[in-house]
Amino acid sequence: MSTQTSPHPTSAAPARATRQWRGVIEEYGDRLDIPAGTPVISLGEGGTPLVESAWLSEVTGGSVWLKVEGNNPTGSFKDRGMTVALSVAVGEGAEAVVCASTGNTSAAMAAYAAKARVKPLVLVPQGKIAAGKLAQAILHGAQVIMVRGNFDDCLRLSRGLADDYPVALVNSVNPMRLQGQKTASFEIVDVLGDAPDVHVLPTGNAGNISAYWLGYRESLSSGESRKLPVMRGWQAAGSAPLVQGAPVTDPETVASAIRIGNPASWDLAVEAARASGGRFRAVSDEQILHAQRELASSDGVFVEPASAAGVAGLLLEAAEGVRYDGQRVVVTVTGHGLKDIDTALSTFTDLVDTVCDADVDAAAAAAGLA
Amino acid sequence: MSTQTSPHPTSAAPARATRQWRGVIEEYGDRLDIPAGTPVISLGEGGTPLVESAWLSEVTGGSVWLKVEGNNPTGSFKDRGMTVALSVAVGEGAEAVVCASTGNTSAAMAAYAAKARVKPLVLVPQGKIAAGKLAQAILHGAQVIMVRGNFDDCLRLSRGLADDYPVALVNSVNPMRLQGQKTASFEIVDVLGDAPDVHVLPTGNAGNISAYWLGYRESLSSGESRKLPVMRGWQAAGSAPLVQGAPVTDPETVASAIRIGNPASWDLAVEAARASGGRFRAVSDEQILHAQRELASSDGVFVEPASAAGVAGLLLEAAEGVRYDGQRVVVTVTGHGLKDIDTALSTFTDLVDTVCDADVDAAAAAAGLA
Repeated sequence: MSTQTSPHPTSAAPARATRQWRGVIEEYGDRLDIPAGTPVISLGEGGTPLVESAWLSEVTGGSVWLKVEGNNPTGSFKDRGMTVALSVAVGEGAEAVVCASTGNTSAAMAAYAAKARVKPLVLVPQGKIAAGKLAQAILHGAQVIMVRGNFDDCLRLSRGLADDYPVALVNSVNPMRLQGQKTASFEIVDVLGDAPDVHVLPTGNAGNISAYWLGYRESLSSGESRKLPVMRGWQAAGSAPLVQGAPVTDPETVASAIRIGNPASWDLAVEAARASGGRFRAVSDEQILHAQRELASSDGVFVEPASAAGVAGLLLEAAEGVRYDGQRVVVTVTGHGLKDIDTALSTFTDLVDTVCDADVDAAAAAAGLA
Repeated sequence: MSTQTSPHPTSAAPARATRQWRGVIEEYGDRLDIPAGTPVISLGEGGTPLVESAWLSEVTGGSVWLKVEGNNPTGSFKDRGMTVALSVAVGEGAEAVVCASTGNTSAAMAAYAAKARVKPLVLVPQGKIAAGKLAQAILHGAQVIMVRGNFDDCLRLSRGLADDYPVALVNSVNPMRLQGQKTASFEIVDVLGDAPDVHVLPTGNAGNISAYWLGYRESLSSGESRKLPVMRGWQAAGSAPLVQGAPVTDPETVASAIRIGNPASWDLAVEAARASGGRFRAVSDEQILHAQRELASSDGVFVEPASAAGVAGLLLEAAEGVRYDGQRVVVTVTGHGLKDIDTALSTFTDLVDTVCDADVDAAAAAAGLA
């Protein structure tokens, strides 16, 4: 059997006792800065596919790989950080966990809290939130508390609960989140045998670019890799504080997972871009939705809108004449398209292509085969 | 670090060249009955988590493990069979692939066809199908052809296209599908070190139970395992032909992925149950939705309704007094809950639990902490 699309050595590799993935803490526990004796609360997160994109390789001239984080248990990269945050919280005796979030963070928190048998609390501003955004958190048993106030009030109350009660705050201010998220870099280095030349990813709250950069630096220090990638973050044009250099008061974009006006990990992210020789740029919602659709139909990878920002960035650069010949480029796609089917379908005008009689030749003609 | 929830050996295991999963063909190609020289069309499917369920272990007295197939690239177990079916189709020169399906099969086919750069065709009866069911197929670029006829006409036309044109039929009649799907058994044996005592799964078209049984028998023959599990299939009460022993003309259940009145793999499935000492039984839609909700909130695993049929069966048996003490039980949950958020949320009457003032002690009281 040929293995034309893979760089993996396929012969003579000594067998592990099991070839099955065991979750990021069991795989990488010795490289995580967490307290000794921490229990393992895992849903089998991480170990996500790194899939070569023939389409983007052709478009850019490079060798482009997609790190498909939607394959995580709750459908986004947040599971990597949450397995660590919940494990540490449980080890420290937390009876509940809390976050002020309406999206992928609350979904991941609630799932891992269910697994850990601690209480998940989600604080949201009263009246601002569509129930659908909280569907996963609700289904995983989160208690949703609507606060008579704004998002900053919710974050303040979350911190207060963590200070005064046996509650762990698992918003991105929790440093354990970065410890888990950095494992995505380890996996990429493991597959490629080195860090890529360039790493491209969507940037909203900016925790992920900071975590990848941490992971790549640690891989270099430990000798697993021999170089550092250039880190390029792509924001949505209506929500691009890192591009503009100042917080955005009312961020607006269809890419809800990166609709963040004042990123929590601002300084770390700016340092990652600066130190790596990278930068932040922005793409329009139209470019994001176009990239989402092209990625699904050209590569078979269906991602949520925010996840397509990095791909949209590569397409924009290609149109500007940027080439990546001879370089390896990894693009993180952060969440599964099933998270937001409606937005994805909104770009289609016709959902059914053809009607035909119940006859083979008629069907062949309809399919353009006859 | 303790690893209390895992049976894996965590020390002294020799390292593979990479610990990253490579998709089912590259991992198990030597155990698949496919033509020599078949190319590999993969999205990194398989290698899904096997997660111990503390909840179901307590309820049943056994050691119960969930095989979480929703972590596959398109969100269901169908990806295992489709990577093989598409790879073989491409190797044989197909220019298009076709299926008569409205659900997970068409989603998986279209994604792998996009990856393979062949044309995906979906044949459905005119006017019967909600666009939402086809969302993934459409997003992955499938041409949807509505046939003036019923589902049998669609299947007949699909076969006719495969006979007369360079088109591969990838419905479950394609034997390559079972070759891919059987790898789930290999993974389970790999983690547990043997086959489980009992394997429980939802049963609709009955291809999956047939594939697992094939995989377990091969694992026994090759010496990877030392026993065969009892195979127990659970159907939805309104769509239970294998329980009733006769096809059901108008199957009805909320669990759309197992809403099938005349299973394609009837004989193989009956043989799997008979030869293993297992059987088929049915659960109500209410029991299925209850199991779905409990699984999400007790174990952190969110599945689509059909996927919860096996869990519902275990709960029904437990209520009947059945015990699994001393036995290892694996339950396959076949697809991700994100496939059908609306049905899942329909069982909730209130989506927001509490409203409180922007005050820490008020929030603590609302959360039951004060």
